[in-house]
Amino acid sequence: MKRVAVIPGDGIGKEVMDAAMLILERLEMPFEYVWLEAGDEAEKKYGKPLPDETLEEVRKSDAVLFGAAGETAADVIVRLRQELNTFANIRPARTFRGVESIHSDVNMVIVRENTECLYKGLEFEVADGVTEAVRVITREASERIVRYAFELAKREGRKRVTALHKANVMKKTCGLFKQVFYEVAGEYEGIEANDYYIDAACMYMAMRPQMFDVIVTTNMFGDIVSDLAAGVVGGLGLAPSANIGERHAIFEPVHGAAFDIAGKGIANPTAMILTACMMLRHFGYLSEAERVERAVEKVIAEGRTTPDLGGSLKTMEMAEEIAKLL
Amino acid sequence: MKRVAVIPGDGIGKEVMDAAMLILERLEMPFEYVWLEAGDEAEKKYGKPLPDETLEEVRKSDAVLFGAAGETAADVIVRLRQELNTFANIRPARTFRGVESIHSDVNMVIVRENTECLYKGLEFEVADGVTEAVRVITREASERIVRYAFELAKREGRKRVTALHKANVMKKTCGLFKQVFYEVAGEYEGIEANDYYIDAACMYMAMRPQMFDVIVTTNMFGDIVSDLAAGVVGGLGLAPSANIGERHAIFEPVHGAAFDIAGKGIANPTAMILTACMMLRHFGYLSEAERVERAVEKVIAEGRTTPDLGGSLKTMEMAEEIAKLL
Ligand SMILES: CC(C)[C@H](C(=O)O)[C@@H](O)C(=O)O
Ligand SMILES: CC(C)[C@H](C(=O)O)[C@@H](O)C(=O)O
Repeated sequence: MKRVAVIPGDGIGKEVMDAAMLILERLEMPFEYVWLEAGDEAEKKYGKPLPDETLEEVRKSDAVLFGAAGETAADVIVRLRQELNTFANIRPARTFRGVESIHSDVNMVIVRENTECLYKGLEFEVADGVTEAVRVITREASERIVRYAFELAKREGRKRVTALHKANVMKKTCGLFKQVFYEVAGEYEGIEANDYYIDAACMYMAMRPQMFDVIVTTNMFGDIVSDLAAGVVGGLGLAPSANIGERHAIFEPVHGAAFDIAGKGIANPTAMILTACMMLRHFGYLSEAERVERAVEKVIAEGRTTPDLGGSLKTMEMAEEIAKLL
Repeated sequence: MKRVAVIPGDGIGKEVMDAAMLILERLEMPFEYVWLEAGDEAEKKYGKPLPDETLEEVRKSDAVLFGAAGETAADVIVRLRQELNTFANIRPARTFRGVESIHSDVNMVIVRENTECLYKGLEFEVADGVTEAVRVITREASERIVRYAFELAKREGRKRVTALHKANVMKKTCGLFKQVFYEVAGEYEGIEANDYYIDAACMYMAMRPQMFDVIVTTNMFGDIVSDLAAGVVGGLGLAPSANIGERHAIFEPVHGAAFDIAGKGIANPTAMILTACMMLRHFGYLSEAERVERAVEKVIAEGRTTPDLGGSLKTMEMAEEIAKLL
């Protein structure tokens, strides 16, 4: 019996979590769910966006299913990723039939390093009006994430792993990342390895995203390029993600609390439902994940969607349409 | 008489520079041209990508017209920007009639801080396999660049200035930038000011680039978002840029040496010619700049272009077509 910590959080987080739970319950998964609080509302109630009890429970669970947090997002999700040492942030970006997007036939996975870079929180005001942030890149974390990317490519039958960096400017930090990338790449014979500068890669992402298969990059660049990739395939409403560590895993949609549409019941549940599918796969329930993904594709292709994708359904109605096909 | 240091550099830099010079000579501008070397070839010849003589001459000139550098690009252009204290990197991105692009009616200017952030070269290997880079953000440089952006908006009759940052994660460095942004914004009554996280902004750039007018951001984010914007409007072949300081100015296309097509005479000269136009404007030759820009638009709209834009002209042939209209 897997123990799943469920954190709906703020804004539409609650709404899309209800939708994902409907699917999981319909599948009758053998999970024990522990509902927990985190985010802006938790901060108001307990004085901390990530209450001690939440952190404690989360440490005892096999996975965290996370909705969204508002203003406190960084303090919740970055902290959770670091506390649980979920070093790999996996963000697939693919096009769906029936979703308007600037490109078609895109199918990539972004593997983002999740523990270091500018996310360490090492910032200082060193003099009046002079601030600095330290970007840390280590051989150990680089090797671990690059290896994860190649293993993922192997597992999913993907052909190419592309490293993104800015080694012409950051010769030591990005230089190390690039060097480690090609060292590890050498161990994976059948998989092509190449690299681009992050700026050029973002241009290519806008013009020819089909050239990307698996992308591996450092934390901040990964943050940027994964939102960009989501934009290229039609928006955050469809973008799931997983944070994977040795012992723990956190599953969260790429989108945030979206307060502008919260409370109306019109948030697109797709990203959250696909996020739940990533959890299913993680636990080895491949056929269940597959069934949900096919149902999501069908419902979207047939226009039975929330308004953001051109349909007229409410969040829970769209979830019901998906559930009916399971 | 303005003194212009001309540095063609490597690869297609030479070819597009010839095209731009054809235009400037046809306009009979009262400029004194000093031809200088920098880049990979200069490094081979003199042992330094930016030879002392080049640096010396450049310091004496009113503007640098720069083509492109190859592998040594960072050592040449980042160094030049810092040596000449050209603190504002101005990168317009607009769509052209006749150019295929994923969006239409885009017309923005990116104002990128050009002296600090991760470009300071402050990198260290602090232990075996542990590297760090220092991201420096100061009140002074932030204020100067934000003010530049608002002045540019005022001068060009633009309506909105948008700051991009990641202040939820980098609370001190990006926090300072964001704070200074709104302080300065308060002085410009008629111009709207807003801000986005860099990751969200890149997604919007892919989906709705029309929402951007003037963008102001720190160095590394500016590097990324300007290539992305170029991609959104049809590629680097059309993207000019200017580096502006109190005393000096460097004008360079956003593209690089493009060794894959160098020597064939097929490089698109548009970015370099529009870059020369930015220099003309900088010196106050507005009507000359305007004439060249209208000629470029006409030639592109009529398909008299290099192969990258679907035409069949060579670099110098396209330049000739433009020159004929002046
Ligand atoms: C909320 C924020 C801290 C977070 C990040 O930057 O990682 C988000 O943008 C994401 O990509 O999950
Ligand atoms: C060549 C490189 C150092 C440079 C930069 O990062 O500034 C380039 O990408 C640019 O944008 O002009």
